[in-house]
Amino acid sequence: MKPWSLAAAAAFLACGPAAAQFKSPDDAIEYRQGALAVMGHHFGSIGAMVNGKTPFDARLAQANADLVLTLARLPWGAFVEGSDKGDTNARPEVWSQPDKFKAAAQKLQDATVKLAAAAKTGKPDELKAAFGATAETCKSCHDDFRKKH
Amino acid sequence: MKPWSLAAAAAFLACGPAAAQFKSPDDAIEYRQGALAVMGHHFGSIGAMVNGKTPFDARLAQANADLVLTLARLPWGAFVEGSDKGDTNARPEVWSQPDKFKAAAQKLQDATVKLAAAAKTGKPDELKAAFGATAETCKSCHDDFRKKH
Repeated sequence: MKPWSLAAAAAFLACGPAAAQFKSPDDAIEYRQGALAVMGHHFGSIGAMVNGKTPFDARLAQANADLVLTLARLPWGAFVEGSDKGDTNARPEVWSQPDKFKAAAQKLQDATVKLAAAAKTGKPDELKAAFGATAETCKSCHDDFRKKH
Repeated sequence: MKPWSLAAAAAFLACGPAAAQFKSPDDAIEYRQGALAVMGHHFGSIGAMVNGKTPFDARLAQANADLVLTLARLPWGAFVEGSDKGDTNARPEVWSQPDKFKAAAQKLQDATVKLAAAAKTGKPDELKAAFGATAETCKSCHDDFRKKH
């Protein structure tokens, strides 16, 4: 665990409302989509590694996992009131089932803590298992809360 | 300085090509715009604080500055060949003057190291000065490399 994930993240989350101040619902949508896209990219880099599409590189895996861990905390405060309209794939259930949505977001965050720890071991098998477990949380949340394309 | 900014970031940057693998130019554009949007949001939160629009909160400032520091390293590897076309505001100079662009990106990254250090002091004046210096690097790079709206 790094200082960010312990102290600063706690501070950040504790100060959620101030941190999550957006100029407009569109701004909030852009922010959360941005965070999810960047997280998805780095998560995908780990996926390519554990699935043998790119060579295993422990240091790169760790850097990517640390980024995923950091980014996984960001999107949720941006699902603000009024941002269910506009250029978004979020389903109304995000707002009508907030506790379920929060729990799903928490599951991802918990999984990314384990992912970062697994990446730190430098063991491909542990990374692969943690990647799979994290991917499950993505899929589960997308199934329930993201519009089908 | 946190472990990420020292060890993992070095590893990440050293492994740039592998980390910067994108499925398509559009993917790269989405990634860099996402990173810049999220960075801009957290940088803007610091701006609101140093300009008295929101109350000064040392812990929140530090969390935001740490995020800016992390995110400032990400966009540059995504200005890949072929991503000058499409939904982008990047000017052709990004690719025709790569050394100048790289230097501008580096200036931002250097400024964010100082910004994070200033945030850590908990002193509003130091944060304000470092915010101003960082904002200069944003503006300078936008002037040269971003299309006018």
